Amino acid sequence: MQFKIAFIGFGTVGQGLTEILLEKKDMLGEKYDFHFKIVAISDIMKGAVYDEAGLDMEKMLELVKKGKKLDEYPTGVKGMDSMATIQETNADTIIEVTYTDVKTGEPALTHIKAALNAGKNVVSTNKGPVVKQVMELLDLAASNNVHYGFEGVVLAGTPVLNLAKFTLAGNKITGFKGILNGTTNYILTRMEGGMSYDDALKKAQELGYAEADPTGDVEGLDALGKVVILSNVVLGKNLSVNDVQRKGITGITGEDVKKAKAEGKRWKLIGSAEIQSDGSVKAKVSPEKLPLSDPLAGVCEAINALTYYTDELGPVTIVGPGAGRRETGFSLLIDLLEINRKLS
Amino acid sequence: MQFKIAFIGFGTVGQGLTEILLEKKDMLGEKYDFHFKIVAISDIMKGAVYDEAGLDMEKMLELVKKGKKLDEYPTGVKGMDSMATIQETNADTIIEVTYTDVKTGEPALTHIKAALNAGKNVVSTNKGPVVKQVMELLDLAASNNVHYGFEGVVLAGTPVLNLAKFTLAGNKITGFKGILNGTTNYILTRMEGGMSYDDALKKAQELGYAEADPTGDVEGLDALGKVVILSNVVLGKNLSVNDVQRKGITGITGEDVKKAKAEGKRWKLIGSAEIQSDGSVKAKVSPEKLPLSDPLAGVCEAINALTYYTDELGPVTIVGPGAGRRETGFSLLIDLLEINRKLS
Repeated sequence: MQFKIAFIGFGTVGQGLTEILLEKKDMLGEKYDFHFKIVAISDIMKGAVYDEAGLDMEKMLELVKKGKKLDEYPTGVKGMDSMATIQETNADTIIEVTYTDVKTGEPALTHIKAALNAGKNVVSTNKGPVVKQVMELLDLAASNNVHYGFEGVVLAGTPVLNLAKFTLAGNKITGFKGILNGTTNYILTRMEGGMSYDDALKKAQELGYAEADPTGDVEGLDALGKVVILSNVVLGKNLSVNDVQRKGITGITGEDVKKAKAEGKRWKLIGSAEIQSDGSVKAKVSPEKLPLSDPLAGVCEAINALTYYTDELGPVTIVGPGAGRRETGFSLLIDLLEINRKLS
Repeated sequence: MQFKIAFIGFGTVGQGLTEILLEKKDMLGEKYDFHFKIVAISDIMKGAVYDEAGLDMEKMLELVKKGKKLDEYPTGVKGMDSMATIQETNADTIIEVTYTDVKTGEPALTHIKAALNAGKNVVSTNKGPVVKQVMELLDLAASNNVHYGFEGVVLAGTPVLNLAKFTLAGNKITGFKGILNGTTNYILTRMEGGMSYDDALKKAQELGYAEADPTGDVEGLDALGKVVILSNVVLGKNLSVNDVQRKGITGITGEDVKKAKAEGKRWKLIGSAEIQSDGSVKAKVSPEKLPLSDPLAGVCEAINALTYYTDELGPVTIVGPGAGRRETGFSLLIDLLEINRKLS
């Protein structure tokens, strides 16, 4: 089918997707009958432009790379804000990739609701709305006969949500256990190589894995959000962030890491949840010392991994990237191809 | 939709699927709108029965478990052979799970062609036909507007083929590397624990992992078939068994294993293929000494694993079972649910 796409937000993830779409345009058309025009972009910093006939995205990437405003694009309507772009353009699919407060989920939550209410598909990598209100948003999409995709909120483009929904369909998934944060896995890998926690953190910051304030990663808050999402989306529960026990990696010393190594084990920051016999779910984020025979133990550097516990297959593990400009941008294409498949 | 199913062959895999279908009937109807009747079974040893209104499969499993012939089922038409069951019953979907010669692919190949030509969907765990003629069979299915599913031929119910086709869609897959045989992985794991090759093989035979003549496993022939399948189905090449270099694990000594362990490495029997710059593919089966930082190194016991090399996500690895009565039976349900999804 032919998608008419609008970007709300146009940072690295949106630009990453745009590069993929441009490079793979012919292949996507031939192999998947997936066709698209990008009709609008609205970014709070970079400006906004709308052309119902479609924008020249090569030019658009050029403007952005030169640090110019989108308003310098030669044609089209300028200055439409997010809500106008969602509600008043001819876009049928909204790509929501704004800078959003993970705690409130805003402004993404408002954008997504407006788009679904306007009968438009939404694909988004914003975690906040999924942590806060995923079931409400999925219901809203269903009642408007459109789709809401968010593969990228856990493990970027590594397709953990689609794996659970489609390729493991027919299984009962009773729990999961994963390395859900790349920054902390990078730090633990460096510590096993002999670095101190402080040096490893500094190195992670230099590489852009960790932010200046690393609390969200090292205290397990990022992993906790993903545990909530997986518990609700995959296990069908209704957890909020306060239902998950949490412990980060700041208490792990070089001595602990050395001791584990001598025992043939490895420390990993593990996010997990398990359905209990009474139907409730026990969820936590905590450092665990894994034996090297655990498939998660071999997952090093900034790589992520997730093991699902299934009734028919036992444990099934997927290992892949958990972040990155193209890798996260690609997650949006997974969602778009899935919508394309449903509508073809 | 409503499937009318016929089993050609009714050994452990077919029985495993039947148990799953009976136990999960309500869930499959509610969650996936998947409904079914099993109308016929034809097994060269156990006999044959056909009832266009559907068979009572609880009774059928009871007969088989008591070692009785299917002809003792109280109603229905008896004695139809495979071809008559495929061509003359009201089944719309054929589950092909006969004992088949992996070298010739027969009798499965003839069964599958007859079913596709008769306009019936086929799902099958038989490797032979996929190794021999997968593209011809897929073309035949397409030209008859039906489906041919064979998820179970590689890694049983661990969904490696669906992963490549759907959840990694949009990526260019440039190669793969995997632990594709559980028996040899079990033997290597025991050898790392200190057992001799001979004792480990004996243990694998006791557990039913290895056959009396273990050649197919230990000389890498089974893994080689899977390398051919993955090269052709996932990489889109046209390999035959003679195009793949092969070396088994019989040359690996206890000393080799000990030495690798001391180096922080592990021997694994690896099947791999990589597309070359001229478009050709280099494929082989060979023991490799992996560093413990490789996600495949942590895969122990009879578990299997496969890493795909992708252009957008880099390496993506899936780890899960590669054999087993229910695990292989379940692979047929993955295919059935996929057909159901396409037709809904």
